Amino acid sequence: MIITMAHGSGGAFTSELIDEIFVKEFDNETVKELEDCAVIQGSTRIAMTTDSFVVKPIEYPGGDIGRLCICGTVNDLLMRGAKPKYITCGFIIEEGADSETLKKIVHSMAETAKEAGVIIVAGDTKVIDGNGGIMINTAGVGFVKEGLDIKSTNLQVGDQVLLSGNLGDHHATILASRMNITNSIKSDNAPLNDLVSNLLKENVTIHTMRDVTRGGLATVLTEISRSSNLDIKLEENKIPVSSAVHDFCGLLGLDPLYMGNEGKCIVVLPKEETEKALEIIRKSNYGENAVVIGEVKEKAEDKACVYIETEIGGKRILDVLQGEGLPRIC
Amino acid sequence: MIITMAHGSGGAFTSELIDEIFVKEFDNETVKELEDCAVIQGSTRIAMTTDSFVVKPIEYPGGDIGRLCICGTVNDLLMRGAKPKYITCGFIIEEGADSETLKKIVHSMAETAKEAGVIIVAGDTKVIDGNGGIMINTAGVGFVKEGLDIKSTNLQVGDQVLLSGNLGDHHATILASRMNITNSIKSDNAPLNDLVSNLLKENVTIHTMRDVTRGGLATVLTEISRSSNLDIKLEENKIPVSSAVHDFCGLLGLDPLYMGNEGKCIVVLPKEETEKALEIIRKSNYGENAVVIGEVKEKAEDKACVYIETEIGGKRILDVLQGEGLPRIC
Repeated sequence: MIITMAHGSGGAFTSELIDEIFVKEFDNETVKELEDCAVIQGSTRIAMTTDSFVVKPIEYPGGDIGRLCICGTVNDLLMRGAKPKYITCGFIIEEGADSETLKKIVHSMAETAKEAGVIIVAGDTKVIDGNGGIMINTAGVGFVKEGLDIKSTNLQVGDQVLLSGNLGDHHATILASRMNITNSIKSDNAPLNDLVSNLLKENVTIHTMRDVTRGGLATVLTEISRSSNLDIKLEENKIPVSSAVHDFCGLLGLDPLYMGNEGKCIVVLPKEETEKALEIIRKSNYGENAVVIGEVKEKAEDKACVYIETEIGGKRILDVLQGEGLPRIC
Repeated sequence: MIITMAHGSGGAFTSELIDEIFVKEFDNETVKELEDCAVIQGSTRIAMTTDSFVVKPIEYPGGDIGRLCICGTVNDLLMRGAKPKYITCGFIIEEGADSETLKKIVHSMAETAKEAGVIIVAGDTKVIDGNGGIMINTAGVGFVKEGLDIKSTNLQVGDQVLLSGNLGDHHATILASRMNITNSIKSDNAPLNDLVSNLLKENVTIHTMRDVTRGGLATVLTEISRSSNLDIKLEENKIPVSSAVHDFCGLLGLDPLYMGNEGKCIVVLPKEETEKALEIIRKSNYGENAVVIGEVKEKAEDKACVYIETEIGGKRILDVLQGEGLPRIC
């Protein structure tokens, strides 16, 4: 079935889409109520976040926009130490989209939500003119334990910076798809619940966590460094990149430090927690390649920054991503 | 400034947009933290909802997409008896949009959020190819008192159906704007906090509330009638429509029963509560034209329905909106 403007009317055709696709896949009591708004159990301290997903193509090696839109929002909740609980989804569908494609995407959302332990509690569908594209916004709510305060202003001198795995896979996948290049690279899109909940369960002290998405590692670390007003020294040769992505980057002149990922995070914590944390992360789902990549340092210049020491003892200061990166990467 | 793909990169240009427009307008402690996810005070029972807004044109008499995207989500929360608290916003901006327009829209969001008593706690910005359009998703969280259970399966025979004001204004405004017709009609986009909180404060028993948006009154009431498996008898001559909208509909052959509104709701409640509720709503903001428009009846046929008695004693059964209505009305 081809999706038309009528499916965005709020009338009979919208109901058909809701009944036939969304309710069937997001099979839970709240969605079945068909209210415009869910009423659900809360908690005295909550986390809340949102992201829109406009990735092109919507299906790619290793995932699709359905998996991505759950992972992205779940990971943002996790990075504040929250237990992800509820997701809302807003579909903006371009006229001409195939309902079979939509079904696949929605199925992928449902599967990923199960993996990430979240319930999809409310949704909305709009149809706009266009060429059959699908965009999805997700917002998420999670519960945060009293006393837990993980944020980017928490860095302390001597803290170690851990990276949960290889850089660049998602970015390289999307770019290769657009260029019709076939290779072995797959997107890393994944929910990081296991990794974070294992760290919290074992009472590891965490100062900051951040998923390494748009803008890449250099951008994310620079933002954190500025928030805490401390420098971060990176060990460039420690930063893990798969050989396939390494070769792909060499070919196209890309820098993995600025490439987007969708299942990687950095964890910044006191030096004495490092070994324990590394061991936990490496045993967790999607954390097997975790390594220490840097350390928090006193600010050396006027402005806090992230830097790499070059082999001859110079300093290469990294900055946030300039320019446009890869449009519609997520 | 013209917005380009670089503003969606997650790097320096995105930061500029966030600092210069969003943080300035959404001036609160949570937004200033610049985290990807907000950690905020919760409650043991919460309501959660989402809507995307793709209205065209984005500015129209009486409002704009900024006002609309706050009202729509706030009203969905209110309809379940929740006190609206937090809003997230996901911007999808088409390349070529003017940052001055974006500023106006964001200012309008900030003003409406103030009026509606909600805080904008998190956001996201994506830039896509296109022609300078702006789309916004909002998700909302509200707090719900224990024991309060307002939902569409609650109807009881004899319940009265109240409508908070005139029908058709938003739909007529958008259509007139697209047709370049100048008239006195303005959108009704408004947050209904005052009306709902006054009803709850006075302990009025409410069975169901629903804002009358896409699909119009006929669609919304049919959905409720089916959920409760009871008929609703409407008094057609009681349904309020302004003379300007009445004339506009006559000219174009539109039916106000199927026209979208953005600041109107129906309240269904026990007969003995009607007079008290009417008085409260009429004294509340945006409720001055409230009237009783119908009554809940035993189901007469196999399928529950909404109907109007014709002058000669026949029955006109209403259904949900068929076809596409007015695309991109909200």
